[in-house]
Amino acid sequence: MDCHVAESIAIIRCFAVNLVDCKSRTGYAASPHYGTARPAQGSLPMSLTPPPRNYTSCNVGHIPRATRERLTGQRALTLWMTGLSASGKSTTAFALEACLIDQGRLCVVLDGDNLRHGINRNLGFSPEDRRENIRRVAEIARLMNDAGLIVIVSLISPLQVDRDMARAIIGADRFLEILISAPLAVCENRDPKHLYAKARAGEIPDFTGISAPYEIPHAPDCILETTSLTPNEAAIRLATLIQSRQKG
Amino acid sequence: MDCHVAESIAIIRCFAVNLVDCKSRTGYAASPHYGTARPAQGSLPMSLTPPPRNYTSCNVGHIPRATRERLTGQRALTLWMTGLSASGKSTTAFALEACLIDQGRLCVVLDGDNLRHGINRNLGFSPEDRRENIRRVAEIARLMNDAGLIVIVSLISPLQVDRDMARAIIGADRFLEILISAPLAVCENRDPKHLYAKARAGEIPDFTGISAPYEIPHAPDCILETTSLTPNEAAIRLATLIQSRQKG
Repeated sequence: MDCHVAESIAIIRCFAVNLVDCKSRTGYAASPHYGTARPAQGSLPMSLTPPPRNYTSCNVGHIPRATRERLTGQRALTLWMTGLSASGKSTTAFALEACLIDQGRLCVVLDGDNLRHGINRNLGFSPEDRRENIRRVAEIARLMNDAGLIVIVSLISPLQVDRDMARAIIGADRFLEILISAPLAVCENRDPKHLYAKARAGEIPDFTGISAPYEIPHAPDCILETTSLTPNEAAIRLATLIQSRQKG
Repeated sequence: MDCHVAESIAIIRCFAVNLVDCKSRTGYAASPHYGTARPAQGSLPMSLTPPPRNYTSCNVGHIPRATRERLTGQRALTLWMTGLSASGKSTTAFALEACLIDQGRLCVVLDGDNLRHGINRNLGFSPEDRRENIRRVAEIARLMNDAGLIVIVSLISPLQVDRDMARAIIGADRFLEILISAPLAVCENRDPKHLYAKARAGEIPDFTGISAPYEIPHAPDCILETTSLTPNEAAIRLATLIQSRQKG
């Protein structure tokens, strides 16, 4: 791991040095629609410090994936954690996040419950809305992977067709399907949010495992049994899986 | 800048060393719902390499912003670029992205046009859909800021009320409103996608600047006149603004 960090550092330094001689590749600078005159001093409504020394020019264009991977020192992946409510998805996700941050890896958790307070606040639990929920999370994971982050998704995502949609959006080469597994009876016994109790009482319709189906993944990349693993142990398994998927 | 990179490297190394002695803070490991027995060997449907040396344990919990900032060596911000169609938002955004990557900064562009092929593919151009478009982009920017990235948004976002909504979602302390400015006549002359021509012909309704309003920001953090700045020059101004907003 120290080698991983050192390599990444060396590359960042390389980037910094290259700044001195970086040449503009932009076609826009020569466009008749853009002026080339130096801007008048004081034309901005703020106090600007001078540009950093040697910061003479830079390239224009989209950043290739390989460039981001050199900068971050990691291959971006999405770990898509699926499982019943209270199976341990979020607990495992946040444990993994802490592990990866400790390793110096850039990562983020997209937690289904949390996202329903933000980007997905205007979605309910109808089949259409659940699918849209999954679609949006997958699109965000893709954007974050493109940005270089390792993404940890924690989402019941009960149907294989929807998880396959997520895989297609994110890209099969970056998608890892992780089954967070615990027997329904165990999940129902945990029931930290009393959702199973409400579902049994008929207060929540279409509740996965009770009144709506959960389809076990056909061929998950990893199965974690949370009845026999601690969150730390599960996180270490996944961190090791991520390590095994890094290039080189 | 080299100091910035070196400092960030030192902190990453510090993280790595701390791994040796990191202690579990999880309360979940002691939960009666989680077993503590070592998992049976071979219980995973994949071949796992042993965990990295010294990777003995790790913390569970959400990652404080300060921890991410130490890891990334930067303060996460969102630069929200607003302006007419063809004012130069995307060009400036991608030029800035290249500049920042050259500096070793982790960043990403959220480009309105591109996002309409992904997360926002199910939105049209009605006032409600345009607001939802802006809301989703703001929510994604917030998530990416939380993950430590500098986010560059390129979105017409013509109404102050919607930009204020974005500021509220992202957080005023991380939000920079950037006006990418060019006279309407110049934008209409550029018209790279022939949208102004179609709007004038009545083929596109509610087109900003032609048949729908554009509200100039009340108090932008920066105004960039793309008639007098090259994309490189605009990018350097913004990179300098970002630098001025970094802590320490």
